[in-house]
Amino acid sequence: MKAQIITIGDELLIGQTIDTNSAWMGAELSKIGFDVSRKISVHDSYHDIKNILGEVTGRADVVLITGGLGPTSDDITKKVLCDFFNSRMVINAEVLSMVEEMMKKRGIAMIERNRLQAEVPEACRALTNARGTAPGMWFEKEGTIFISMPGIPYEMQYIMNEHVIPDLKKRFSSRCIIHRNIMTYGAPEARLAEMLTGFEQSLPECIKLAYLPNYGVIKLRLTATGENKNLLEKTVNEQVNILYEIIPDLIFSATEESLESFVGRSLRKGNQTMCTAESCTGGKIASMITGIPGSSEYFKGSVIAYDNNIKEELLKVPRDVIRKHGAVSEEVAKRMAEGARRLLKTDFSLSTSGIAGPDGGTREKPVGLVWIAVSSDRGTVAEKHLFYLDRIANINRFSYAALNLLRKQIEAK
Amino acid sequence: MKAQIITIGDELLIGQTIDTNSAWMGAELSKIGFDVSRKISVHDSYHDIKNILGEVTGRADVVLITGGLGPTSDDITKKVLCDFFNSRMVINAEVLSMVEEMMKKRGIAMIERNRLQAEVPEACRALTNARGTAPGMWFEKEGTIFISMPGIPYEMQYIMNEHVIPDLKKRFSSRCIIHRNIMTYGAPEARLAEMLTGFEQSLPECIKLAYLPNYGVIKLRLTATGENKNLLEKTVNEQVNILYEIIPDLIFSATEESLESFVGRSLRKGNQTMCTAESCTGGKIASMITGIPGSSEYFKGSVIAYDNNIKEELLKVPRDVIRKHGAVSEEVAKRMAEGARRLLKTDFSLSTSGIAGPDGGTREKPVGLVWIAVSSDRGTVAEKHLFYLDRIANINRFSYAALNLLRKQIEAK
Repeated sequence: MKAQIITIGDELLIGQTIDTNSAWMGAELSKIGFDVSRKISVHDSYHDIKNILGEVTGRADVVLITGGLGPTSDDITKKVLCDFFNSRMVINAEVLSMVEEMMKKRGIAMIERNRLQAEVPEACRALTNARGTAPGMWFEKEGTIFISMPGIPYEMQYIMNEHVIPDLKKRFSSRCIIHRNIMTYGAPEARLAEMLTGFEQSLPECIKLAYLPNYGVIKLRLTATGENKNLLEKTVNEQVNILYEIIPDLIFSATEESLESFVGRSLRKGNQTMCTAESCTGGKIASMITGIPGSSEYFKGSVIAYDNNIKEELLKVPRDVIRKHGAVSEEVAKRMAEGARRLLKTDFSLSTSGIAGPDGGTREKPVGLVWIAVSSDRGTVAEKHLFYLDRIANINRFSYAALNLLRKQIEAK
Repeated sequence: MKAQIITIGDELLIGQTIDTNSAWMGAELSKIGFDVSRKISVHDSYHDIKNILGEVTGRADVVLITGGLGPTSDDITKKVLCDFFNSRMVINAEVLSMVEEMMKKRGIAMIERNRLQAEVPEACRALTNARGTAPGMWFEKEGTIFISMPGIPYEMQYIMNEHVIPDLKKRFSSRCIIHRNIMTYGAPEARLAEMLTGFEQSLPECIKLAYLPNYGVIKLRLTATGENKNLLEKTVNEQVNILYEIIPDLIFSATEESLESFVGRSLRKGNQTMCTAESCTGGKIASMITGIPGSSEYFKGSVIAYDNNIKEELLKVPRDVIRKHGAVSEEVAKRMAEGARRLLKTDFSLSTSGIAGPDGGTREKPVGLVWIAVSSDRGTVAEKHLFYLDRIANINRFSYAALNLLRKQIEAK
């Protein structure tokens, strides 16, 4: 069961938009047993789109296509599909009534452009879209299914969940691919690989191992392929157990989840709460934590203390401590964490003070330096880290390092 | 001058990693006049990589390749390139000494795996990498230049900036492509397109218009192509002026920049400061603002008041106001903004209170509802918005809506 993904849009090629759609679709196809063998992005160009449609025909069982279905004239995918499948445009009554209803609900007057969104090639089956005005379209040709969807992520996701995935599941009996993700933090990639050399060499042939680093978090992905699902599950579980024996301290989760999600789960389990006091990370950690549904159960709030006055006045970091050690120091990070925990009345607090760059570094305190601290009723601990990255990458590394320190403190309790 | 981009890695196809590299590379190539005609992602598979190298040969002047150069055994790109170019591996002395120095600086012992990173195919020119252990590689075959780089974004970016872009600029005399981005907020895509129908129809033939929506911000991209740079610039500027006449209230910037960057520039210009009081956005707005270099000049800090107690105790929102109107209400949003401005002593403050979902909605206050407020010495204003999206998309829409209200208040002064 092979699949390919085509994303259409000049903005993807000139790099104005990052293609998150293809990643999302790849993950969904993968879950139901498809091997996504290729992803291709092409221009909003009649010939480029038609060429790639020709190239993939017969080379995959399923081709998912996004983009170029908007109401504006730079969107030409529907026209190309109509020609490629030698069809003609017709108004789809069901789609039209959905568009009309949506416009009414949002209090927007229906204009001709909106009505045209309900036109689809006669050769396709229209897939209704409750999140927007452009429907999805399902075509078939020479053994290949082509499914075209809008490029707006939440519209595409709606059509995938509502139509595409259920229909593909009915059509194809799944071949067995299992992915298992072991989440680690604390060792750089080369060192981790060194520690796992023996493990890798003795892996059963049906299992492949990959290393996926992301700002210090390294995901180890085991992919098992075969016929017998139960046997595969058993074999993978055995290998996961072996991993736990080799690197017990580095693994924080044996299911795919982020560090912030794991920390949240741990807090919830212990009925505990947390807050943050962020300087250089500027709300990034709070934003990561509150991105998780249900985080209000354990996350109380934060003080973002970018300005030193806020460190003093709200977090009660003594002025002379800042003067003596500087804002980026062990002492200030600890006082910030302690001050936030008192102020926001939580079980744990997490603080950061560092230099994200590009400016503000000195010889003693270069860009990339951060002090992080965690305070709880067991006391306050701090760690120093140094990364040599750009502003956004530094902020991300700081945030993960801080979340990992919090994780260790929660586990130590 | 045609370019193609190949990104290698199973994680891209099964959607575990979002391909940000190709967007970044596409933008850089575009700036120096290349037309990026296709982007392709393939598996870490010997045959898939070799096939795609064969397919692109002769079809582009330049092919940029990332991924599969790590020290672990799932990384096979270097081996495939070596075979594809009928070459053999040799140790590169310059790369080896850089790797040794880097390990020393980081205090990590040099292991055989690190040494192997300094091996490259004899057929290539090695491109040194000061941010990691894997060098870039420059090959040429049948009129196509192939450049292979590591998949870690900051390593790839270093090699691009240090070697690839300067060398390509020397090699190719640039053909002229100008992109101009006009940033708008406040009208949905179809309505904006309706307002710009006449404008589009009378655009000179050398200019193309595209609409790029992102959580309520719609970027209008004008792309001009031709031989004479000065003439192109003039023509584009004329069209930008016409746009300003048609939609003056919707445009916030005539250069490509985010709403948070624009707000920051405006504050800096007026020597003003700001803070945020965030409930449902949980630090997202603060994190967006502090992602901008130099934001400490105008951003003082935030109170993330996820818990109602923090709204009461820190932001001094009276308990009976929360009881009477609920936390998600005009009154509470206004009191939050006022409380934060007093507490953090800034010229402007921005608050949010809403329901991001997926749970917590009611009939009167559904998921997707948000109240935002801005307080300044001209008083406090509030706006209500309603989006029907998932948690992360709602948080993003809330944040942009809030930043836009702040922008309007700054401009009104």
